[in-house]
Amino acid sequence: MATNQTPTRGYSATKDQLQTRLRRIEGQVRGIERMVEEDRYCIDVLTQISAVQAALDKVALGLLDGHVRHCVAEGAQEGKSDEMSTELMAAVGRLMRRG
Amino acid sequence: MATNQTPTRGYSATKDQLQTRLRRIEGQVRGIERMVEEDRYCIDVLTQISAVQAALDKVALGLLDGHVRHCVAEGAQEGKSDEMSTELMAAVGRLMRRG
Amino acid sequence: MATNQTPTRGYSATKDQLQTRLRRIEGQVRGIERMVEEDRYCIDVLTQISAVQAALDKVALGLLDGHVRHCVAEGAQEGKSDEMSTELMAAVGRLMRRG
Amino acid sequence: MATNQTPTRGYSATKDQLQTRLRRIEGQVRGIERMVEEDRYCIDVLTQISAVQAALDKVALGLLDGHVRHCVAEGAQEGKSDEMSTELMAAVGRLMRRG
Repeated sequence: MATNQTPTRGYSATKDQLQTRLRRIEGQVRGIERMVEEDRYCIDVLTQISAVQAALDKVALGLLDGHVRHCVAEGAQEGKSDEMSTELMAAVGRLMRRG
Repeated sequence: MATNQTPTRGYSATKDQLQTRLRRIEGQVRGIERMVEEDRYCIDVLTQISAVQAALDKVALGLLDGHVRHCVAEGAQEGKSDEMSTELMAAVGRLMRRG
Repeated sequence: MATNQTPTRGYSATKDQLQTRLRRIEGQVRGIERMVEEDRYCIDVLTQISAVQAALDKVALGLLDGHVRHCVAEGAQEGKSDEMSTELMAAVGRLMRRG
Repeated sequence: MATNQTPTRGYSATKDQLQTRLRRIEGQVRGIERMVEEDRYCIDVLTQISAVQAALDKVALGLLDGHVRHCVAEGAQEGKSDEMSTELMAAVGRLMRRG
């Protein structure tokens, strides 16, 4: 869960920051739609797709960071390390393989 | 460049198919914005991000396929294989590293 | 740190399992060297490279799982959640971008 | 197919260069085996795995480049663009998803 406090470093992101990034990503996807509509050069469209994927990776790392920092840490204190870790690894595996 | 003809197999995609997929991706990104807004469980949000990444990969492969089929093939006949290939590899490299 | 106990599910792996997988990966890389030596068809070599990368991802997830299960959980109890999480996200980010 | 001539730019690689890189990768994998054997800190092992993945990506791009430059270009002249492209996209898709 993302918090509203300002994180100070690394991949952390507040809820506001994640929402801002996602709105920007939505705009980038619309830009790619326009590029395809206008028959822009494929390589330029691919470059934009790579940029969106990098931005989504950054959102994913921000969410993961909040999850590890809050949920996994709390889970550890409640003896749920195994469960949390199994679930987390499945999520990281999907991100590495992309879906 | 994507064409309007119906491709018959593999990763090929018509311009219409690419646009439909991109509109769906735009909707998925909006869905992720809502999930973050509603403080949904991080792991569920991450699963959606992985789904968008997989969908973007599919659009990228459709564009790459059209590029190789048309531009690279034509380039080869005009003696521009080296140039086309260098450009293509840079694009594939960015997709593999995502940005 | 990988343990010698038999893990029961998910991505967990014992030290023995990780070592067995790494030895197999080493053999696969040698196989790719031979394929290049024998001028085997590029697409077949690429398929083998993808297989090695999938196997390395699996080793990485096994190591990450052990790390979250032991180090991050312990770190949480010692008030080092922030530090552990920042370090973990940097590692996951490198795995997602591959280097 | 990799050639023995010295390529001049981009991702191109001679057969010798690919073999040298693969031998280095084999050594890196052995180094990771030792790190696991010696119970080295997981995050450090993960960093090495990311380095091997990046090195394998570079070998893959070198092979792909040779393939596009020679096989796809020739295939285009023999009217086999469709077949070559379908096969190439399947290989790129596996590299993007890693296996």
